[in-house]
This record gives sequence, structure tokens and C-alpha cells, in this order.
Amino acid sequence: MTHYLDHNATTRLLPEALEAMTRAAEKAWANPSSLHAPGRAARAVVETAREQVAELTGAAPHEIVFTGGGTEACAFGVLGAARSLTASRGRPGHIVATAFEHSAVKSAVASLEGEGWEITWVKPDADGVVHPNAVEAALRADTSLCVVMAAQNEVGTLQPIAEIGALLKQGGRDIVLFSDMIQSLGKSLVNLAALPVDLAPIVAHKIGGPKGTGALYVRKGARVEPLLRGGGQERALRGGTENVPGIAGFGAAAAWWRRHGDAERGRVAALRDALQGALSERIPDMRVTAEKTPRLGNTLHATFPGARGDVMVMALDLRGIAVSAGSACASGSVKPSEALLAMGRSPEDAVSSLRFSLGFGNMAEEIAPVADAVASAYAAARA
Amino acid sequence: MTHYLDHNATTRLLPEALEAMTRAAEKAWANPSSLHAPGRAARAVVETAREQVAELTGAAPHEIVFTGGGTEACAFGVLGAARSLTASRGRPGHIVATAFEHSAVKSAVASLEGEGWEITWVKPDADGVVHPNAVEAALRADTSLCVVMAAQNEVGTLQPIAEIGALLKQGGRDIVLFSDMIQSLGKSLVNLAALPVDLAPIVAHKIGGPKGTGALYVRKGARVEPLLRGGGQERALRGGTENVPGIAGFGAAAAWWRRHGDAERGRVAALRDALQGALSERIPDMRVTAEKTPRLGNTLHATFPGARGDVMVMALDLRGIAVSAGSACASGSVKPSEALLAMGRSPEDAVSSLRFSLGFGNMAEEIAPVADAVASAYAAARA
Repeated sequence: MTHYLDHNATTRLLPEALEAMTRAAEKAWANPSSLHAPGRAARAVVETAREQVAELTGAAPHEIVFTGGGTEACAFGVLGAARSLTASRGRPGHIVATAFEHSAVKSAVASLEGEGWEITWVKPDADGVVHPNAVEAALRADTSLCVVMAAQNEVGTLQPIAEIGALLKQGGRDIVLFSDMIQSLGKSLVNLAALPVDLAPIVAHKIGGPKGTGALYVRKGARVEPLLRGGGQERALRGGTENVPGIAGFGAAAAWWRRHGDAERGRVAALRDALQGALSERIPDMRVTAEKTPRLGNTLHATFPGARGDVMVMALDLRGIAVSAGSACASGSVKPSEALLAMGRSPEDAVSSLRFSLGFGNMAEEIAPVADAVASAYAAARA
Repeated sequence: MTHYLDHNATTRLLPEALEAMTRAAEKAWANPSSLHAPGRAARAVVETAREQVAELTGAAPHEIVFTGGGTEACAFGVLGAARSLTASRGRPGHIVATAFEHSAVKSAVASLEGEGWEITWVKPDADGVVHPNAVEAALRADTSLCVVMAAQNEVGTLQPIAEIGALLKQGGRDIVLFSDMIQSLGKSLVNLAALPVDLAPIVAHKIGGPKGTGALYVRKGARVEPLLRGGGQERALRGGTENVPGIAGFGAAAAWWRRHGDAERGRVAALRDALQGALSERIPDMRVTAEKTPRLGNTLHATFPGARGDVMVMALDLRGIAVSAGSACASGSVKPSEALLAMGRSPEDAVSSLRFSLGFGNMAEEIAPVADAVASAYAAARA
């Protein structure tokens, strides 16, 4: 049996989400834009899910724009905000973004250079936090957009979004804040109504919902140009036939987290702490990343000096344990984690790290065998 | 029971597709980019589906790039090709597009004006066909991209893609051909290997597959910039965690059509002809659109003089019959069909039309009651 400790990559479907998805696929399969009864039934499913997602996030239902996934929501928010600003101000502006955003955000921000924007990348400190002071120091008179993720996907550190958001509106400033909440949703308490965030992508498959479904939170009054145009769906902000079963599953997963989130976050954080303790006991050389920093309760990122992360991932895989090296590494090539490099860590550290991310499948009985296996894989990888 | 005659809007899931989708959701739920065993299992599901979709379309597997739906595939193809051409030639160029493309394509083409492209819209003739001569007449020395759909989604007419594609490569010309095959797939025999098409969007939910899953065919050697960047998925052409269950369902639907397509096309075309006959008998004033033109075998578009299409849609809905007015009309406002206007029809005609599109649920027993109901709805709407 696999011990799955890679919940920041993706999660198993919650039974409730799978059921909502298959029920919608069977009963609400029509096109929600169709005027006839089957179309209206599909529309009703979409709107119920929108309310469920809104309730989990503290948003109003009309602030939730469904997309085909997290990457689309990231590109839609970053490019859409920038293009809307360019149009309203008559010229591109200046954007401040943290240096360890997820690649989906980072690449969207980087592509804005081709549209005339100037970019300042703000580095986090050694503990994986982007300080409000550092953001403020990067602001210019023509800064109109700021990009700061709520929780870092590799190391799990929480960013001071409230403070950063406040300073972006201080003293006559009116800078749009885009905050990637894909890793925060579910794992930490998100209340968008109370946060000074204008745009925030979220995704279903990180919280037990289906793949291929995400959303962009668009605060009432925030302006964003569509990335996908067409049939006028989603208040003309996102063209394309809605993925009704996927959206239904997203709604069901959101409802689950609203009901069980507090208990589940507590349970998983205790498991993560137990795993951290068990590993520290067995592996004195292991260095926990951002140990003293507020982190996602499910995430443990650590460096294993002298061992390559990808080698350990494969060695653990042979022992039935699924974890991730610091960086997603689809190609098999070993690239040092950009997030760790941004935090000022050495390239050696940045290829010698593992991310353990826990979630609903995990049980206390897994901790000891997993810790044993990691210790033995480390000994082998180091040798 | 609903008589569903709106298969060009969307289709019920094939049982095979639903089964593949739920099986993948239960067994292959990991992230296909993950290196561990669960990740590799998910990867295998994606690659099997890619082969199935490739087989149905005559493409090679590596020519299929999965997307989050049809609208995304349209935007990706049109914008991606144009931006790649702009980059390689150092300046934007000229694009020739038909005037009755689907709104997802049309709006992507139109948005290129903002990127410095010049656009010539070519009108179809009164029978709903874009003539190769008309395309040729629109070409300029700087034309580098041509957009012609394979089958028109409202009226069903097939376009002479082979002839148009040939002339785009004639006499030293090297013009990229983008052809929307979203309505053609399944309903007509598509063999991309034999067609001079460079880029073609397709989508699962029009052939009994799940919503939220599409693909862009990218001919080997064709150049297209990604619309969504990020984790390097889909050979770095489309970032974002793959919708594994959706893709699995797409593959299963493609496999079904490869096995049963010929028989199903014949069966449905006979039903369509029977419906056309039964309606003509009961409603002498009805005018079938493009009656003598090669059309999709499942599609019957007709004008009902003196009646509003949306009124008839609602009247038929009350009788348990799901059809569509000529134009998709999510907002409830009555806009004349742009496709019909492009064909030179009057605004009166363009608001007085219905599209009947048949598919796998339909049976011969439905024809007479549907025709009766349409006749009575027409009489009422006209009165």
C-alpha cells in the first residue's frame, strides 16, 4: 500500500465530490447556457456549487468565476488584471511580485514584460517570508499590480497578505493585489471578505475535488479582462461551456471543508508535527525549512544534506511512499528548487530537499514506518 | 420524458466515457507530473487516452495537446499561431477568417487586432459555404494565417477545407490553416493525416465525453505559442495539472466513435432526414437552411417565417422537447444569428430559426411526436 504524502501536488477525490460529480454527469449533463429544461437543470447545479465555493472562501457567489483549472485561473487573474490596467491607464505599468511564486503565476507575470510591463521581483527572507517592508521598498509611483501568494507551495510558509494588502491601499495608493490561494484553500482558513485581496485563484483538486476545475475570485469592483472569450459565460469573464460535473464536485468538496475543515486541519497538523518529530529523531542532520515560521499545517519541507531529492523520491517510491522533491520535476531533469534559491539557500540545499504534504488519507500508524523508510533511504542516497 | 435534439450544444456522457472517468477518478487520481508510482499510473491513463483521440482523428499521439475545453483550444490555436508568427516574422501580419466562425474562434481572431494584426472576414455564400475562390481573393502578400471551420455549428454546412488548405500552400505560399473541428469530430469522418490543416481544436463533450476536456491538434512542425504556461505539461505547450479523469473519458468516447462511428452516423443521418421530411410535410412554410449543401448528418437548421426562434424554443420546452434557436443565447436577449446574417439572410430570418441536432439518444419513435409538437408550437408562435 502506498503511503501518499504528496497532497500539495494533488489529492484523492473525496467520496462526496466523486458522488456529486457522477450525479451531475448523469443527471445534469446538458449545456447550462441552453434555454430548455435540461439546460436549466445544469445551470442550477453550477449555481449551487458557486454558493458552496463562495461559502468556503468568504466570497459572495458572484465573485467566483469558474475556470478550467488553477493554471488558467492564475493566468486569467495576472494577465487579465494587467491588461485591464493597461487599457484604463493608457499604458503598461510596474508590477511587484514575489520571487517564489508558483510557476503558473511566475510565468504569467514574466510574460507581461512582452506587453511592456516592468517587473520587480521581491525576495523572501531566509525563513520563506516576504516582508511587507520589502514589498513597500519595491513600490514605485507607477506600480499598479502586486502579486503575493498566500502560502508557498513548496515550503508551506504563510505570507503576510493582510499587512501587504493594507499598505497597497495606504496613502492614496490603489494597487491591485493578486494572491494565489491554491495551496491555502482548505489547508488554512481563508476568509476573502476580510482580506484586502482583489484577485485570488483557487483549484478543486487540491481540496479533494476533481481535476480540471478551478476558479478566480474577483472582488466586487475589481477589473479583469477575460483570458477566454466566446459565449458570454461566467458574466462574460470566462467563455466556454462550464464543466458542470467538475464544478459540482468542487462545490461538494468545498461544502466538506466548510463542515469538517477545522477538525481536519487540527488532525493533519498533529500528524505533520509527529512526522517532523519522528524524522528529527532518526535523522539528526535533517534541517526543517522555515521551522519557526507560520506554515501550512500539512506541509513539512526539509533538507537532507548530501543526498539528491529526486534520488530519495525514487528510493521512497520503491518502499511505497509517495513524496515530492522540493520542486515539481516532470521532466526528470534535476533542477534546484527556485523557491529555495530565492530564500538564499545554496544550490546544494536546493537539490537536496523533500516535501512531505499530508492530507485526508493519512493516519497516525503511517508515521513510524514512513520515518523509518526516509531514514534508510537517506542513508542509502548519501552513501 | 425529454426529447433531446440539441446535440450540437452538448451530449449525454456515453456510459463508456462515464466509466472511464470514474475509474480514473478512483484509481488514477494522482498528479501525472509526479515521479512516484501513483503519478506514473495517472500519466499512463493520459497517454492511453492520447492514443485513442489520435486514432479517431488520424493524428499522431504527439500531435494532440490536451486542454481544459473547446474554447481554450480555440484561443490557444488562434492566438498561439498568430503570436508565433509575429515572433518569427518580427511583426504582426494579415489573417483571413470566415465570417461565421463559432464565437470562441471569432472573438480570439477579433482580439488579434489589438496585437497589430489586420483581419479580412470572408463571407460564406447563401448556402453556407465559404468558397476557395473567396478565400483566395482575400489573400495578401502578408497573409500568414487562415481560419476556416470544418463544419458550421449552427447550420451544419461542411466547408471545403481540403481545397482551401491546398491553395494556402500553393505557389510558394506558406499560410497556416486553423480549422475548428469541434462540430465535425464524430459527426463526420475526420482524418487529419490527409487534410492540409495545421491546427484544429476538438472537444470531448460534443462526442459523449466529459465537459472540461478538449484538445488542440498541432500538426508536427506547426508552431504555436502556449496560452497557459507553468509546469511544462503537454510538451510545454499547455501548463496545468492534466484533468486525468476528463482525459480518460475523452479517450473512451473517441474509442467508441472509432468502433461505432460509421453505423451511428448512418443511423442519425436517417433520423435527421426523417425529421426533415416529417416537418416539411406538416409545415409547408418551413425553409430548410442549406438543404442542397453537404451538411453534418445530424443537423437540421430551418427558418420558420413569422415566429421567433426563442419563443419556439420555450414553447417546445414546455412540450418536453429540447432544441436550440439558431444562436446560442445565454442571456435571454434575442440577437439575430450572426451566421445567418453572414449568409446574407435577413434579420427577420435570423431570429426565426431553429436548430435540431440529433445524436445517440434519439430514436425513430421520436420523429412523429416531435414534428407534431413543432408544427403546433409554430402555429402558436406565429399567431
